Amino acid sequence: MVLFFSMNEFKLIENFQEILYEKSPKNNEKKVVGIGDDCALVDLSKKTVVTVDSMVEDVHFKRWYDPKDIGFKLTSMNASDIASCGGVPKYGVLSIEFPKDLDKDWMLRCYKGIKKGCKKYGFSIVGGNTSSSNKISLNLTLFGETKKFLSRSGAKKGDLLFLSGETGLSKRGLEILLEDLPMNKKLVKTHLNPIARTDLGKFLAKYGTSGIDISDGLLQDLGHICEKSKKSFQIFSNKIPINRQLKKSLGCKKKALDYTLNGGEDYQILCTIPPKHKVKAKKLGLIEIGYTQIGSGIFLDENKVNDSGFKHF
Amino acid sequence: MVLFFSMNEFKLIENFQEILYEKSPKNNEKKVVGIGDDCALVDLSKKTVVTVDSMVEDVHFKRWYDPKDIGFKLTSMNASDIASCGGVPKYGVLSIEFPKDLDKDWMLRCYKGIKKGCKKYGFSIVGGNTSSSNKISLNLTLFGETKKFLSRSGAKKGDLLFLSGETGLSKRGLEILLEDLPMNKKLVKTHLNPIARTDLGKFLAKYGTSGIDISDGLLQDLGHICEKSKKSFQIFSNKIPINRQLKKSLGCKKKALDYTLNGGEDYQILCTIPPKHKVKAKKLGLIEIGYTQIGSGIFLDENKVNDSGFKHF
Repeated sequence: MVLFFSMNEFKLIENFQEILYEKSPKNNEKKVVGIGDDCALVDLSKKTVVTVDSMVEDVHFKRWYDPKDIGFKLTSMNASDIASCGGVPKYGVLSIEFPKDLDKDWMLRCYKGIKKGCKKYGFSIVGGNTSSSNKISLNLTLFGETKKFLSRSGAKKGDLLFLSGETGLSKRGLEILLEDLPMNKKLVKTHLNPIARTDLGKFLAKYGTSGIDISDGLLQDLGHICEKSKKSFQIFSNKIPINRQLKKSLGCKKKALDYTLNGGEDYQILCTIPPKHKVKAKKLGLIEIGYTQIGSGIFLDENKVNDSGFKHF
Repeated sequence: MVLFFSMNEFKLIENFQEILYEKSPKNNEKKVVGIGDDCALVDLSKKTVVTVDSMVEDVHFKRWYDPKDIGFKLTSMNASDIASCGGVPKYGVLSIEFPKDLDKDWMLRCYKGIKKGCKKYGFSIVGGNTSSSNKISLNLTLFGETKKFLSRSGAKKGDLLFLSGETGLSKRGLEILLEDLPMNKKLVKTHLNPIARTDLGKFLAKYGTSGIDISDGLLQDLGHICEKSKKSFQIFSNKIPINRQLKKSLGCKKKALDYTLNGGEDYQILCTIPPKHKVKAKKLGLIEIGYTQIGSGIFLDENKVNDSGFKHF
């Protein structure tokens, strides 16, 4: 772990430490030591969940995006993975690559976005590494704690399938952003600033049987539960929430359903819960969209969804 | 965590999983679950040490290097951080970026190098992420366990300063490699294939008072202990081991001392140990090169080393 990279002309690492470390919410607990050492020492429970995600320039973002959004989204992507496994985020380790001539304010604002995520999701950055590169790349390894690990493989026959919120917005938001379509703030904001459902982590650990976050698209991610749990799913198009502004932006309900079923990066959670906990799930705002049955594959109303997903276009 | 990136034409992720996961030494212990899930579940102790390091194309390596060396070196860099804090490597999380047109065999061979590191240092890869990018970038977050965390700040007055082996070889090896100088296999190998001193982790946790691995150079890294421990160090040039082949390649003893004091990336360990444990340290092959005293700064023989390090050229 290199905390002081030799870039004298560019004191980003000091800022990195200053902005991300010292004011992180949990460092006061004295459970983390070793900032400035080769490693950080962290106090973890026996049930630790760990994930890693990256944001790469020109793959996940353009440099003209607000860097604060980029930093925050990185934390959301990771926190979402932790939540979907029934965990609560605790510590993060950051690895950053950037061009030597990068505007200093760009990076500082990106750090602010990461810090916003630390606060929002309640974790601390405990270590990091920086390197030069010709493009910006941000890697966050996040670990959290769970009382019960929620896998993709735990769905049982009869379990109800719940969705934590509307999907498809992010996909359309990205199109608006890159193709210069008529502006819709809600959709663009969902793409740039998705919120991870860490509010659901503990509930899922307690009552869920399987879970996944929707990063690739509702059907595709449900397909992962299908495959890993060796079950079939029946879902209903009239139960799947379609965002009004998404419909308006696309100008057609059918198209909006496509986006809802196949759009990625909304970071809502898809989970299975036994019927006896249905009321509790609904109280939390979870939306029942179908159920688990024996067999394989996904049935949308009467139609089996093919392997390549549900595609109209 | 994305284990199946949508690159159908390029099944690197499947290989990633196949090569790195299933045969990892510790997965059989059933302590790791969740491969293919959003997170991995790991069983960690209360005293977990964590570090992250990266290898970026054209910054840390050239694409024409043997990819197996690159993968292995990534594990050495990280394992070295863990060892220098008195830890033993346990789990790793890998984040990889690569161009879509990268030769498949390149990446497979790189995975083999990483796997070689897993075996050598006794840890398992438990999760990962891949993304496309225009250059290759490898990020490894490694966590280990320790009985006592060895910081840079623990050196006490009277402690002896030990070095785990010869340094400066890697710097010269890099020059030979890039400047087409007369070949010296030992020096080039030290640069491409450094071995982390994980054999010392437990000993350091038991008897050490401070530790650091030499990634930036002996004097520079000793400077970190100086600063953090708020102590001064007396070191002796005639006690510092100078590699014979380094001297031969440089053609001059004085120059060889410079390389030994200032060359980075050898991944030897520098540590302080109370005099009463001197015999045990020497039995392990540690080389006594000086001692800790009150005050500040480093004294090489009679000369105070200035802030910018010891430089003849």
